[in-house]
Amino acid sequence: MGWMTDETGLEKREANYVPLTPLSHLNRAREVFADREAIVYGNIRQTYAEYHARVTRLASALSKRGVASGDVVATALPNLPAQAEAHFGVPACGAVLNTINTRLDSSTVTYIFEHGGAKVILCDTQFLPMVEASKAACAGGGPEIIEVPDAQAGYPATGRHPTYEQLLEDGDPDAPWQMPQDEWESLALNYTSGTTGRPKGVVYHHRGAYLMTMGTVVSWRMQLFPKFLAIVPLFHCNGWNHTWMMPVLGGTVHCCRDVTADAIYTAVAEEGVTHFGGAPIVLNMLVNASDTARKPFDQQVEVFTAGAPPAPATLQKIETLGFNVTQVYGLTETYGHVTESLWNPDWDAQPDDAKPALKARQGVAMPMMEYVTVVDAQNTQVPMDASAQGEIVMRGNAVMKGYYKNPAATQEAFEGGHFHSGDIAVQHPDGHIQIADRAKDIIISGGENVSSVEVEGVLMSHPAVSLCAVVAKPDDKWGEVPCAFIELKAGAKATQEEMIAHARAHLAGFKTPKAIVFQELPKTSTGKIQKFELRDVAKAL
Amino acid sequence: MGWMTDETGLEKREANYVPLTPLSHLNRAREVFADREAIVYGNIRQTYAEYHARVTRLASALSKRGVASGDVVATALPNLPAQAEAHFGVPACGAVLNTINTRLDSSTVTYIFEHGGAKVILCDTQFLPMVEASKAACAGGGPEIIEVPDAQAGYPATGRHPTYEQLLEDGDPDAPWQMPQDEWESLALNYTSGTTGRPKGVVYHHRGAYLMTMGTVVSWRMQLFPKFLAIVPLFHCNGWNHTWMMPVLGGTVHCCRDVTADAIYTAVAEEGVTHFGGAPIVLNMLVNASDTARKPFDQQVEVFTAGAPPAPATLQKIETLGFNVTQVYGLTETYGHVTESLWNPDWDAQPDDAKPALKARQGVAMPMMEYVTVVDAQNTQVPMDASAQGEIVMRGNAVMKGYYKNPAATQEAFEGGHFHSGDIAVQHPDGHIQIADRAKDIIISGGENVSSVEVEGVLMSHPAVSLCAVVAKPDDKWGEVPCAFIELKAGAKATQEEMIAHARAHLAGFKTPKAIVFQELPKTSTGKIQKFELRDVAKAL
Repeated sequence: MGWMTDETGLEKREANYVPLTPLSHLNRAREVFADREAIVYGNIRQTYAEYHARVTRLASALSKRGVASGDVVATALPNLPAQAEAHFGVPACGAVLNTINTRLDSSTVTYIFEHGGAKVILCDTQFLPMVEASKAACAGGGPEIIEVPDAQAGYPATGRHPTYEQLLEDGDPDAPWQMPQDEWESLALNYTSGTTGRPKGVVYHHRGAYLMTMGTVVSWRMQLFPKFLAIVPLFHCNGWNHTWMMPVLGGTVHCCRDVTADAIYTAVAEEGVTHFGGAPIVLNMLVNASDTARKPFDQQVEVFTAGAPPAPATLQKIETLGFNVTQVYGLTETYGHVTESLWNPDWDAQPDDAKPALKARQGVAMPMMEYVTVVDAQNTQVPMDASAQGEIVMRGNAVMKGYYKNPAATQEAFEGGHFHSGDIAVQHPDGHIQIADRAKDIIISGGENVSSVEVEGVLMSHPAVSLCAVVAKPDDKWGEVPCAFIELKAGAKATQEEMIAHARAHLAGFKTPKAIVFQELPKTSTGKIQKFELRDVAKAL
Repeated sequence: MGWMTDETGLEKREANYVPLTPLSHLNRAREVFADREAIVYGNIRQTYAEYHARVTRLASALSKRGVASGDVVATALPNLPAQAEAHFGVPACGAVLNTINTRLDSSTVTYIFEHGGAKVILCDTQFLPMVEASKAACAGGGPEIIEVPDAQAGYPATGRHPTYEQLLEDGDPDAPWQMPQDEWESLALNYTSGTTGRPKGVVYHHRGAYLMTMGTVVSWRMQLFPKFLAIVPLFHCNGWNHTWMMPVLGGTVHCCRDVTADAIYTAVAEEGVTHFGGAPIVLNMLVNASDTARKPFDQQVEVFTAGAPPAPATLQKIETLGFNVTQVYGLTETYGHVTESLWNPDWDAQPDDAKPALKARQGVAMPMMEYVTVVDAQNTQVPMDASAQGEIVMRGNAVMKGYYKNPAATQEAFEGGHFHSGDIAVQHPDGHIQIADRAKDIIISGGENVSSVEVEGVLMSHPAVSLCAVVAKPDDKWGEVPCAFIELKAGAKATQEEMIAHARAHLAGFKTPKAIVFQELPKTSTGKIQKFELRDVAKAL
């Protein structure tokens, strides 16, 4: 430990120790990038000076309304300017931001209101009925609703609640911000999607969000003045913290309310968007877009994708269109992405058809992480042989404080000194990790482990397949057999026999699906396929 | 303050709180960039795996030799691989790195040995006589000398001391590193150049160095795999922390023992160097290089310059050669640069002859700083009118812990809650600061303040001038008058009359130098002109 023999007078002081917080980024941007564009949405264009002033008004107005330090302020918003402003304005009054998934059912939202204890919610007009119902069912009366109308998208104010602009009117654009005194103070409260049981409230610290932004600059090859299209919902890991990052770079956040191929191509071609993130389903959307939706553009667009391993076939197609895709991996508990499929320039020499497989790996630890590795049940690293499976665990500054009001679950998640992801992976000899399966997604057929990801990859390479999911189907003889659910491309046709033959041509017999179901796949708000629903269907076949 | 109503179980843990240290960067690079080139010097080329193993050996060998946590290990080295290795290896055994300026006189080095208390010194063969003399004069016996020979540069081992490679032989390449338990632990001890009185020992913390590296990535438009030429001595603010930064990016450090135009052009043209830093004197060297020294290259090279405001004429010339220059400003106390002359793309439309003046400003706070501003004697920010002068002060995480064993000087430096630079500047309406003068460099002539920087800028625009410095000369009538010292370009000729006429054509009468002296200018090891010597000459004229 590097303490010198005499450290008199060398203690931390105001001058040399500033608690890390993404709020500092926006304060600096107001000075350094005052006249540059910060936010764009339809006919709304704000400079950093304007953005900062609106954020300050929001913080000041919330304080005046009785929101105190450590109180929770919720949002139920699409990716609108108000959602970006809340990312700074809520913590700037010392409060904790609780972005709520707008696609949840109202009983879950009632649970979140009661558990998180939000005092105020900023709610988009489209989601008012759900939020009003949730509030009505709240034991404690629930949060005060501030309505955020979006007239240009067809959602004018209902008149039932004070509006967001009225709230800002109450705020003082010169009020001082309440900066954290300790970088471990709470910044955000994000409920997990909770495929089983009640969602858990993940608490972020200011320090982690700051370091997340700095590490992402490196991983995403960001330079000054990027134009970032906000596709990943800001209620999902705070949009992977990208809104907090933009002021470091003087970048512009282009808000995207409705995620369509047309909206994305337009933003890229007409606004010069340089970066966006999205689940593989977004990549599929771009690859399968109609000719009228596609627009030509010159810049290379850097795309982060996560949520599920993208199919090699999709990767191969999208890169010819001008998008450079990097797969990243993470969880709500890790502020979003903490690994990246970091491309080694030596691989440029690999044959073209070998490249997607390299990119389909979840990769290596991002710069703000101390490590991400794969361990066995004894907490020992598994051999880096691309075959031994274990659980992905990580240690670093972009890991949550824990679960709100749930010390038992927190303790369990942090067992052994690192965070347990619950995801099963192998580690390649070059250190890159690759998800074999979610623990519960492994199919055990005749004593052999079948990776649903591998089977899905093969099915996705069939030209008619748009999306697919493979789950276990109980079987008298084998215990379990793989069962595939397939969503076909618009206008495409295929039969069960054709699909099974295609799979068999690339897979061992025990890995080949024994049943194929053509249907639309059930998805969570973040584009993850809800396999638990499919398992029920498979069981009943 | 964002503490929620119930923070049970949400405390810091090993999994989610890792003390910030640049050591983490190299640990990650060993995993992520194992086979990429980390260090290049002449016929030496090391991958990150090799670099990490050598660093580990160094740490292990120092521990075995009795270097304990908090002990000081010194270096007297040019920018060689051993100097880069010491930047990681010394802290990896818990010790504090004390890089010593190789151009100091031996009595000052004796003072540093006694004040800092180094246990061991890694010393280049060229500087052995100076270091041996310094050690011989040490009251406590001084540090053990480990010789770092550099045979390829003509400095084979003398046989008088154990060599660096022998030391590494003793080390275990798999020994665990001693990571800081607290990011406030001491990392480095850097003595100021001490133009007056004894040098002061500036102590760096691990946290500051980590954040310095992350902020510099943004400011220097760094992307993955940069090739960085180490020109700025690593004994000067640890080379502005760039060696600590390179592993974040998988970058290569190209060591430069002798800074010549030929060496720089060769590294740029043949090794593909993308980034380097250097004092304006280095820029002059490139601009004035002979045709045989110049080599063509294709990449845009990003250059940080600091130490003195570069002359507009130099800036204008160097950019046509393929170098993009960003002026940065900082002090030993701030880990090197903390402001950058951040180019606003809107200025691209400015006339070409207006651009150098914009680039000659010291600019705005870099991303890791909370603020850098200009205050008057009452600690109040001066008007941002490009005219009111005050002292540059800063607050942020890239500010030293304080001065070693000097709490009084530390207290004075941190008066009022920020670090006092001692530099006098104005602040422009767009927030950019510009140094008017070092406090002691202001010339007061007939009650008017004369900025020596302004006069120097005019003289530098004369085609015969290579370098110049303007100081006060005592004058019976005016109190002081400007006196210019000029270094002419090789082969160039000029007279005193010609220079005064050139200055008078661009400056008010009271600003025009009354005396011109043609001579080589005395410089510190970092290329700063030693004006105090020139003042003595001027006084005696």
